[in-house]
Amino acid sequence: MEPNPALSNNATLEEQSLRDGLQNEARLFSLDEKLELVGLLVEAGVKRLQIGSFVDPRRVPQMGQTEELARLVHAAWPDLVCSGLVLNAQGLDRAVGCGMRHLSLSVSVSDGHSRSNAGCSAQEALDRMVVLVRRAVGLGIGVRAGVQCAFGCASAGEVDEKTVLAAVQRLAAAGAGEINLADTAGMAHPLRVRELVARVRETVPEAVLSLHLHDTRGLGLANLFAGYEAGIRLFDVAAGGLGGCPFVQGAAGNVATEDTVHLFDRMGVVTGIDLHGLVKVVRRYEQLLGRELPGRMRRVLSFGEA
Amino acid sequence: MEPNPALSNNATLEEQSLRDGLQNEARLFSLDEKLELVGLLVEAGVKRLQIGSFVDPRRVPQMGQTEELARLVHAAWPDLVCSGLVLNAQGLDRAVGCGMRHLSLSVSVSDGHSRSNAGCSAQEALDRMVVLVRRAVGLGIGVRAGVQCAFGCASAGEVDEKTVLAAVQRLAAAGAGEINLADTAGMAHPLRVRELVARVRETVPEAVLSLHLHDTRGLGLANLFAGYEAGIRLFDVAAGGLGGCPFVQGAAGNVATEDTVHLFDRMGVVTGIDLHGLVKVVRRYEQLLGRELPGRMRRVLSFGEA
Repeated sequence: MEPNPALSNNATLEEQSLRDGLQNEARLFSLDEKLELVGLLVEAGVKRLQIGSFVDPRRVPQMGQTEELARLVHAAWPDLVCSGLVLNAQGLDRAVGCGMRHLSLSVSVSDGHSRSNAGCSAQEALDRMVVLVRRAVGLGIGVRAGVQCAFGCASAGEVDEKTVLAAVQRLAAAGAGEINLADTAGMAHPLRVRELVARVRETVPEAVLSLHLHDTRGLGLANLFAGYEAGIRLFDVAAGGLGGCPFVQGAAGNVATEDTVHLFDRMGVVTGIDLHGLVKVVRRYEQLLGRELPGRMRRVLSFGEA
Repeated sequence: MEPNPALSNNATLEEQSLRDGLQNEARLFSLDEKLELVGLLVEAGVKRLQIGSFVDPRRVPQMGQTEELARLVHAAWPDLVCSGLVLNAQGLDRAVGCGMRHLSLSVSVSDGHSRSNAGCSAQEALDRMVVLVRRAVGLGIGVRAGVQCAFGCASAGEVDEKTVLAAVQRLAAAGAGEINLADTAGMAHPLRVRELVARVRETVPEAVLSLHLHDTRGLGLANLFAGYEAGIRLFDVAAGGLGGCPFVQGAAGNVATEDTVHLFDRMGVVTGIDLHGLVKVVRRYEQLLGRELPGRMRRVLSFGEA
């Protein structure tokens, strides 16, 4: 069993820039560029990383080299917790085939979001996902079950709390050791984070809980702070604040890794990640993408330089 | 005596875009443009507004028409709490001369920041400011005393808490009914906001406390949330997230009015300000400045429009 991060004051960050960050970018990153970025992230102290998703590369060409990347990353950094996103049975087959030992199996609890993203109702998607979670757990894979739109959906509005809790219960019962509540549309606010985390913990007291927050409405760090105070010790972040979901109205990026590390540094919470190392990662992303990213600390720490 | 906003769950926002927002912009706004913006802000429900500062217009030409603007705004919107920023005796003379009934008298507790901004040590600046507060209070003016760099200074680093509390005590004893803690350099974090607000309240239990937060390091809304939970009911904000201090490293803008209203709307806290009305203000600022502003809710609410 994995150690329960909630028993420590320290926080663990799972880096999402290579998956949630790059999946919506027009630019296709080469395998070498992705490997270079993983290297810079590891050098900065990142210990958990989502390297990509096992989705149809014809639909999402940015995620086309996930198997090959997985093999190279496993070989180069054997101690890194290297995860990948799986949304369906074909994806799970591919992930198993390339030796993934950690996976994020993710499903939306918003019917509208599920229909546009997964092509079926939220109920159908959950039924299928429960089967996949059981299969992955049976293969000895460490499974995070992700609940997309746990805080509501921009187009379909509020999601009933009972729906979220029922999904969480089924996913944990299927063997997922970690439940990831995803604010896919950036709809959460701090009071709601506190409330939902408490209800989910009552529902699945044995599961490790984690949060995946988007900064769409500027509340990413406020929600992360509320989550930390509610006992969450595991957060998804992306260097530079990269990312966003193409199906969600006005979506901005993930909470920026460097801004999160700065917040935790100020609070005396250890993440093991070095802010200056992250700035190198953000600069490399900015160079490759040819634009400034929304995260703040790269700019603050670069101020006054040539 | 003004009603104590801390006795309500509702929050009051003081709009800073015309002062802290415009003072660093290269573009000079005409009197007509400023009046139009005040009109749009009032229409959106803004009830407190800083219209400008009484500083040397040769040094800050953006603030050149403050007297004339004050007269026109007082005449057009007699119920608006219309305030202005005063940093020295000449400024107070000018503010009194144009009939200001509310003033922000502001002083830095960081020695380095005080020397670059006010040209004297923090101790000298405080001594002079205490005299001005007494004078303004004696004239029947509602006085907010602002404490710049209350959460530290980017160049000079930490500011000793004792220095902050001593300044607060002297300013309140001089008659300031409101103490405004300003995070001029965006150095605050939520735990520190909670801590300092508690200490300041113990020190000056009769004063109304307010917060002036900058989003330099992305923590503006997280700090505002922590301040609200610590009992603060009065916050400075600027439409679009305009603003920043030219003497502070990497400074970004004030907390965006529209993002704050969205947060409070979601929390069920009444501000009396309409989000869609604010979007009109932000659009007008963006049109006049020819660039997008950092606040998020204008973009979220404009998504999908032509």
